[in-house]
Amino acid sequence: MTSNIEIQRVEKSKIDSVDFNNLPFGSVYSDHMLTCDFVDGKWQTPKVEPFAPISLDPSAKIFHYGQSIFEGMKAYKDADGNMMLFRPLENCKRLNKSAERLVIPQIPEDIFMDGLKKLLEIDSAWIPTNEGSSLYIRPFMFATGNGFHASPADAYKFVICTAPSGAYFAGKVKVLIEEKYARAANGGVGYAKAGGNYAAQFYPTQLAIEKGYNQVIWTDDNTHQFIEEAGAMNIFVRINDTLITSPTSDRILDGITRKSILQIAEDNGIQTEVRKISVGEVVEAAKNGNLKEMFGAGTAAVISPIAGFGYQENDFDLPELENPYAQQLKKLITDIQTNKTEDPYGWRVMV
Amino acid sequence: MTSNIEIQRVEKSKIDSVDFNNLPFGSVYSDHMLTCDFVDGKWQTPKVEPFAPISLDPSAKIFHYGQSIFEGMKAYKDADGNMMLFRPLENCKRLNKSAERLVIPQIPEDIFMDGLKKLLEIDSAWIPTNEGSSLYIRPFMFATGNGFHASPADAYKFVICTAPSGAYFAGKVKVLIEEKYARAANGGVGYAKAGGNYAAQFYPTQLAIEKGYNQVIWTDDNTHQFIEEAGAMNIFVRINDTLITSPTSDRILDGITRKSILQIAEDNGIQTEVRKISVGEVVEAAKNGNLKEMFGAGTAAVISPIAGFGYQENDFDLPELENPYAQQLKKLITDIQTNKTEDPYGWRVMV
Repeated sequence: MTSNIEIQRVEKSKIDSVDFNNLPFGSVYSDHMLTCDFVDGKWQTPKVEPFAPISLDPSAKIFHYGQSIFEGMKAYKDADGNMMLFRPLENCKRLNKSAERLVIPQIPEDIFMDGLKKLLEIDSAWIPTNEGSSLYIRPFMFATGNGFHASPADAYKFVICTAPSGAYFAGKVKVLIEEKYARAANGGVGYAKAGGNYAAQFYPTQLAIEKGYNQVIWTDDNTHQFIEEAGAMNIFVRINDTLITSPTSDRILDGITRKSILQIAEDNGIQTEVRKISVGEVVEAAKNGNLKEMFGAGTAAVISPIAGFGYQENDFDLPELENPYAQQLKKLITDIQTNKTEDPYGWRVMV
Repeated sequence: MTSNIEIQRVEKSKIDSVDFNNLPFGSVYSDHMLTCDFVDGKWQTPKVEPFAPISLDPSAKIFHYGQSIFEGMKAYKDADGNMMLFRPLENCKRLNKSAERLVIPQIPEDIFMDGLKKLLEIDSAWIPTNEGSSLYIRPFMFATGNGFHASPADAYKFVICTAPSGAYFAGKVKVLIEEKYARAANGGVGYAKAGGNYAAQFYPTQLAIEKGYNQVIWTDDNTHQFIEEAGAMNIFVRINDTLITSPTSDRILDGITRKSILQIAEDNGIQTEVRKISVGEVVEAAKNGNLKEMFGAGTAAVISPIAGFGYQENDFDLPELENPYAQQLKKLITDIQTNKTEDPYGWRVMV
């Protein structure tokens, strides 16, 4: 345990103002946040303090040069009041991979883990227990150092906020396979959870929404012939009984939900393949009835079944199956996450 | 003129603390800034107010999803105390092109132009008059709206700050032609002045600096066979007596200095070509002595001559010419910018 976390509690909790039966996603915030500043070449003492505005000079590099990275995690509470996280060290490691690519200093694992646990202890009442709800956790780091010179900042802030949250998507999800825009370059930052990767998706996503879809399926920027990611999630395709997902690369996020699903699927007798998926084969499989399922996988939505997709002005509906992989796998993974079953993998971390 | 700009002046100017004979680039800030908030679906009254910290909720989308764009401009003052800008409407238009791609609301031209002029009037004493110095102007816009949902924010802030500045680069500039990393995808946001584009360049640039170079010459992400941009500038290559620059695209910034140089070069008898430039032809020209010059072009550095480049572990020096295009063109453009000569183009805008 980090010997030193400064703690300043709110004078009065705002929890009574929150309707835990009608939680939106990520827009109601718990009482406290963890903060830690990197200045003078080192991380200072982390603090748990009231969730409150952050003050930054107009010349802070976050405003100008996009040095910002984040993670998404969830905390759950079981019927006995035990609190748990899912593979939290993986998020810390990935945050540091993103940090390396964006030239942001690495956050020490003990500040990340001990700070997070202390924050959850103090705000434990904010972890929802309703089915389908959870405490969404948002660790992020950004440049606070000043200057209009296009170079890395000399100061940064690490913050963890939490938000009791309901479902990310409501209703059926239809996606559009992208033919013009792209989210990532070869040799770029697509594999990092960099803020700029998300803003870059908004415009094409908005065009897709105007056409009646919810999300874009990203394809490679060079040929648009290979499926890479689904909006802000990894993508899985089931052709006949094989579950396929694209390999990670410098364009594709190494999703923790993605790799957990691959492991669980294999251990539950589902054949998996990690390989490039061509748009052509997906369209062909949709036409001849071999395309059984598509779903997105990520922390926020866990598994988000896709009801249909559009490509080149054609729409393809996916069949409604009895007991789809998406449903089986979502139950298997959330049962582990919420302490309803054994965890043979050691993924669950009690707080 | 916008009927309405709120003005709140500093109680005491900090200008006396500034050494105008030793100005850094972009790290000393003038007394005031222009701000304008977009809330409830519309732009509010712009304000000239003291340069001071901005307060944002930790859930503001600028921290998470990289919705930030900016421009770079310069103001000059001549010997008679006249203040002038260079093609300022072009910056406003480009900011709005960036805004469209990042799903940020368009800033009305009158808020941009009238706000900027009012700001310069109030801070006119901050415009340096020393040779090589200028008032660097940084307009920027970012997401202030809150939420962890990966979607565009519902509120934004437009800000203009200014910084009396000296030269951007000091000394000779050596560049490395990039073979692995890339700054932009086809169908991506490379043409926008989006914050995330700059953070993405820091790591490869740092690797180049460690090898003894100052900047990276970016190549296309697919083949790395074509030269696209130089660091945060456009690039020009002179082979024999022809000045060549890459065509703009969705990966390459439509630089205002770039297009001004093309125009001035043509009107001064320099043959220009706008076409793809292969790495192979540059290396070949360097080997056989036909490569006479390379330079970067952008607002911050105006024209930045390149002394040599590295490619595949080889270094190539450029010749030291008597009266290089870089020097001729820099004088022609800065004479227009600083009111030392006629402006046949109507580019200079008096404040």
